[in-house]
Amino acid sequence: MAVIESIPNVSEGRRTEVLDACAQAIRETGVRLLDVKPDATHNRTVFTFAGAPDAVRAAALALFDCAIARVDLRTHTGEHPRLGAVDVVPFVPIEGVTMADCVALARDVGAEVARRHDLPVFLYEEAASSPSRRHLEDIRRGEFEGLADKLQQPAWAPDFGPTRPHPTAGASVIGARMPLIAYNINLGTDRIDVARKIAAAVRHSSGGLRFVKAMGVNLTDRGLVQVSMNLTNFEKTPLFRVFELVQREAARYGVPVVESEIIGLVPSAALTASAAWYLQLDGFSDDQVLENRLR
Amino acid sequence: MAVIESIPNVSEGRRTEVLDACAQAIRETGVRLLDVKPDATHNRTVFTFAGAPDAVRAAALALFDCAIARVDLRTHTGEHPRLGAVDVVPFVPIEGVTMADCVALARDVGAEVARRHDLPVFLYEEAASSPSRRHLEDIRRGEFEGLADKLQQPAWAPDFGPTRPHPTAGASVIGARMPLIAYNINLGTDRIDVARKIAAAVRHSSGGLRFVKAMGVNLTDRGLVQVSMNLTNFEKTPLFRVFELVQREAARYGVPVVESEIIGLVPSAALTASAAWYLQLDGFSDDQVLENRLR
Repeated sequence: MAVIESIPNVSEGRRTEVLDACAQAIRETGVRLLDVKPDATHNRTVFTFAGAPDAVRAAALALFDCAIARVDLRTHTGEHPRLGAVDVVPFVPIEGVTMADCVALARDVGAEVARRHDLPVFLYEEAASSPSRRHLEDIRRGEFEGLADKLQQPAWAPDFGPTRPHPTAGASVIGARMPLIAYNINLGTDRIDVARKIAAAVRHSSGGLRFVKAMGVNLTDRGLVQVSMNLTNFEKTPLFRVFELVQREAARYGVPVVESEIIGLVPSAALTASAAWYLQLDGFSDDQVLENRLR
Repeated sequence: MAVIESIPNVSEGRRTEVLDACAQAIRETGVRLLDVKPDATHNRTVFTFAGAPDAVRAAALALFDCAIARVDLRTHTGEHPRLGAVDVVPFVPIEGVTMADCVALARDVGAEVARRHDLPVFLYEEAASSPSRRHLEDIRRGEFEGLADKLQQPAWAPDFGPTRPHPTAGASVIGARMPLIAYNINLGTDRIDVARKIAAAVRHSSGGLRFVKAMGVNLTDRGLVQVSMNLTNFEKTPLFRVFELVQREAARYGVPVVESEIIGLVPSAALTASAAWYLQLDGFSDDQVLENRLR
């Protein structure tokens, strides 16, 4: 059983009739629509769906058809940076597929939507055609309003499609990446400086673990602070190692870990690996999980 | 999606043509045959299959048809105690079904095989009709050779079928129980007395945790000892608590835990609960596991 997940971000978070139409278009392709999370302030919606590679391809194409017909970036406002109507589409390997399969799917979908809609497409993350366009924030810098100028620069020629923006849909960023885990650890103190110091200690950008992004956050209503993190590769930087390191850093300030939380979905293997580490299950194989054998 | 697992034990562990025929009969019903584990010394085979309740019912009935036609207890010898050709058949709730569903299935299959084969059937564990026949070892005491006398005692009238043994197939024990986890913890010492003391400390029968069976075992080729356990209800006596208690008891003797191991299959929820405990994931729900949402 081959399963790919996709988490497209669409630049519409207010008009429910548009979101309903896009959700319906996704469902009709046979994928499982797992979540639709609109944000009115961002004026942006995150769709999550998963299924067999062919169905995921069809669902992504259907979403482009639906959103490009209904979203006009010329009149779009919202707090979240965006480059296009279908702003970003990552493909994520879940089961029975490799990252290379997801990269191939990203290229295939990118070429097809560029052709079908005369839309510039950038490939990012694992699908990036060069290191300089690996990170979404670099591609998106300048946003829709700066896109026409950006596309004229040789360094920012799109991977597919024309070197001018689609008049209403801008451009899209399509790629492949590992599942992302949104993981927070709450600390038994109201000292935000402690949360910030720990975030700086554990995150990649300031010297910490390779696949961790982190910041300190105040939970004022609870009188606690939080180390709020994104784990971008749970196989190489696993949950348990992040938890243990944060706990150790907190102890150095005399601060206990009160609890941790996973926001949204988490691949089973991320939890299984943590159980195996703490229980010292050296010879454990995911084949021993009953549910994996049933699928 | 409703899934029940069944792990029937058949009194034949040597004649592969019999085991192949029974495996084929099981597969033809549409269940997933997960494992066939013959033991020539025990002259006994453990089949593991799972699927929707109707398919599991059909597979259990097919296995009775197959084994009763081919196994003759009058000439059967082996080291493992046994009462019948199909010695014991547990039904285990895996997903989308309750223990009550498995008890109902045990009664249904028990009544049907008693009728079809004129076979005495005892219900055990969660399906037991009285506390005195809850435990398999009590029902099986006296074995096939003592069965005719046992069935004459009013206290041992079968739950279904006649009060005399089936001439070649004896009687069968059918019931419902939680998934069983075979869990071993290896200790960094060759002192078998330490393993035995820890086993005695953690097992239910001598004062330990409610759903733990344990014994000390020598791993002579590795120079280690092992606390070898069966966990009979991982929801009420979870893996992490057993591990932590064994580790604490071992530390009292200055002995480290080298590793632990799960033999065979384990339900995903047993590992997820351990990850959630160690990571202090207080608000975690199994709905957050991506694969659970896909099924």
